Amino acid sequence: MRAVDLIEKKKLGFEHTQTEIDFLVNGYMDGTVEDYQMSAWLMAVCFQGLSDAETAYLTNSFVNSGEVLDFSQIAKHVADKHSTGGVGDKVTLVLVPILASLGIYTAKLSGRGLGFTGGTVDKLESIPNFRCELSKDEFFNQIKNIHVAISSQSPNLTPADGKIYALRDVTATVDNKSLICASVISKKIASGATSIVIDVKFGSGAFIKTKEDAFELADLMVKTGRLLNKKIDVVVSSMDQPLGYNIGNSLEVIEAIEFLKGFYGDDLYEVTLELLSKTLINCGFAYDMSDAKKMMDETIKSGRALNKFKDIIIAQGGDSKVINDYSLFEIGKNRLEIKAFDSGYISKLSALDVARCAKLLGAGRDRKIDKIDFGAGVILKKKVSDVVNQGEVVMELYYNDVEKSKLDEAVMIARDSFKISKIKVEKPLLIF
Amino acid sequence: MRAVDLIEKKKLGFEHTQTEIDFLVNGYMDGTVEDYQMSAWLMAVCFQGLSDAETAYLTNSFVNSGEVLDFSQIAKHVADKHSTGGVGDKVTLVLVPILASLGIYTAKLSGRGLGFTGGTVDKLESIPNFRCELSKDEFFNQIKNIHVAISSQSPNLTPADGKIYALRDVTATVDNKSLICASVISKKIASGATSIVIDVKFGSGAFIKTKEDAFELADLMVKTGRLLNKKIDVVVSSMDQPLGYNIGNSLEVIEAIEFLKGFYGDDLYEVTLELLSKTLINCGFAYDMSDAKKMMDETIKSGRALNKFKDIIIAQGGDSKVINDYSLFEIGKNRLEIKAFDSGYISKLSALDVARCAKLLGAGRDRKIDKIDFGAGVILKKKVSDVVNQGEVVMELYYNDVEKSKLDEAVMIARDSFKISKIKVEKPLLIF
Repeated sequence: MRAVDLIEKKKLGFEHTQTEIDFLVNGYMDGTVEDYQMSAWLMAVCFQGLSDAETAYLTNSFVNSGEVLDFSQIAKHVADKHSTGGVGDKVTLVLVPILASLGIYTAKLSGRGLGFTGGTVDKLESIPNFRCELSKDEFFNQIKNIHVAISSQSPNLTPADGKIYALRDVTATVDNKSLICASVISKKIASGATSIVIDVKFGSGAFIKTKEDAFELADLMVKTGRLLNKKIDVVVSSMDQPLGYNIGNSLEVIEAIEFLKGFYGDDLYEVTLELLSKTLINCGFAYDMSDAKKMMDETIKSGRALNKFKDIIIAQGGDSKVINDYSLFEIGKNRLEIKAFDSGYISKLSALDVARCAKLLGAGRDRKIDKIDFGAGVILKKKVSDVVNQGEVVMELYYNDVEKSKLDEAVMIARDSFKISKIKVEKPLLIF
Repeated sequence: MRAVDLIEKKKLGFEHTQTEIDFLVNGYMDGTVEDYQMSAWLMAVCFQGLSDAETAYLTNSFVNSGEVLDFSQIAKHVADKHSTGGVGDKVTLVLVPILASLGIYTAKLSGRGLGFTGGTVDKLESIPNFRCELSKDEFFNQIKNIHVAISSQSPNLTPADGKIYALRDVTATVDNKSLICASVISKKIASGATSIVIDVKFGSGAFIKTKEDAFELADLMVKTGRLLNKKIDVVVSSMDQPLGYNIGNSLEVIEAIEFLKGFYGDDLYEVTLELLSKTLINCGFAYDMSDAKKMMDETIKSGRALNKFKDIIIAQGGDSKVINDYSLFEIGKNRLEIKAFDSGYISKLSALDVARCAKLLGAGRDRKIDKIDFGAGVILKKKVSDVVNQGEVVMELYYNDVEKSKLDEAVMIARDSFKISKIKVEKPLLIF
């Protein structure tokens, strides 16, 4: 077998076997397939696509390229959740303690964020002393002890995906659905989860722009799970306006804590319940959504979910006093209000614009080595369909030392991020 | 400018500027554009194509990546000829001395061959002591003194094409017409030619398989020449059966010498005249084809063309006694006759099969470091449309020490390479 022949095969639109995909992936890892051959193959894939079977082969190859965690000695069901990413998406921060408080073992591997705002790991690290770099033993023991741990991804899992993702990033081959699917699903399988639920987000603030693309990717993920004998549930949700009210690392953790205290906005509640419900049904803990809703409301109301979050913080070395004293978080020392220029209904609130604004304020990073300002971000005071009066605050920007030109740009973007209509606007559909 | 954005641009089907193509090509040469980025871009080009303008930009970029030879102090017209490659194609060996004998300065840079049979340089090196590795000064001085020199390609010309060609070869991105065109035309322009004639061959024994593809490539070459202010003529010719009678390095040189002595087959004569005629008209040495034909016949009949070939051999250190004593060539010490299994007309003679046979006998190489057996090859005794009687020799195989399994395969392929029909067969069309 020669790499050049496999590239040619894909270029001509033929289907690979598992052996061929393994040859490419393993060869790329051991250096017998060169990076310039892998990138040519990836580009051919972008044009010719991969079949459902090939997508499963690639996923499988990624899984086998590294360690596969196994929690079968600890629990029958191990849950994991993944989001394709959105603005203000702090679902993991609330869903994971809720799941664990209901007795579901949850092994969560999360990443740092590149782009507009931080990832789950960045957000958690805004809690003073919170440690996400758990060793394998620490990860296992914590799950055994308190049902749940959240760790930054181990480099031993799916190393082939890691290496290929880095290559895709610099060769304009990121956006193929099969490649995205294999990357996401392989990580979840390797992390030992038996029940996987994935939130595929689409819209201005998501990587995936259209509903059609989101459904295609969702469909592919479910099929890939089926072909690899893993139960994968997918939720498709809208990301046209930010999820919840706070955007930025510390600010999102605060919103998550408020949620667990019982103070939540509709949209974050709706997405969390949807993902929880799928997991509970899948693991045989609930019969249907209304069952799941009762359990969720109860675990929040009783304080068990919040306690579980506290347990996580303590287990991972963080200062759990933040739960009752938000002043322990870094919050931007400057606050700037963006006010409504007219009265009416908020008819649009661009997730992308809010994210760009938050990034300019310091909440995101371009390169792994860049530092995030945990305290920077945006708090929304209004969301789509809300009534607003001229001069009323629509959002607040929080920031520390930001160059004037960046701040000016952030303010301009914030002002342009929403529209006000005289005609009544309905709440947009969130879950599809 | 970032390479990843340019890859994305081509992936989406947009047109590059000269500046963008220069960025990619120059960046690839100086290491700021990585090989895995170049290969991804090349694959995107294979799917999205390059416009005529982009093809000219790429050609131009290749030319500017290295030295450009300049003969303007020596001659007003400097001719060059290129063939996209075929089986038994020894046109260069006869055309170049004919051109020079007619007073046309001819600066010929030729390559070694990979694949079925040797390139022009390999063929010439079958003349004892013939030296093709001329320095730039030697090349210039020889052209000044005897109007003509044939040298293996200088690494200082179009280095970007060389580096990118090597990458295309291992990433399945060889077959795009714009990439082929830029590669061929840039080398011709950099070699200082003012009159360029190209023989685009198609058929079983050529790189290009169909007439349509050949015409597309020919058209693109002419357009590229026009956009870069170079006069480029293109001939499209068939390569379904081998050109001439001899295939293999020494054997082809012998056929070329015979040609210059006035003993030629129709097809080799026809292609040579066509290419000569275009060059003579282009340089103002002839009015039309019949004019060119007279000049060609006369220079052969007078012995001037053969003398010019002798001059070349002497100037480049070779033993010119080969011209009258073919025993000075290495010729395969074993001869094997392939006979007709039936009587009738030769209706097919596969150039590809004859080439595969010659390669198995030792006439070709797979890697640059492999040694060619100059004496190995095939002499055809019959060509398409010839009458043949059962038991009559159709071809002779010449070889030295060849493994039995390879020899058996060569004989099997040779036997399968031709078909005999009871119905009269017309001579196939050669020039289109």
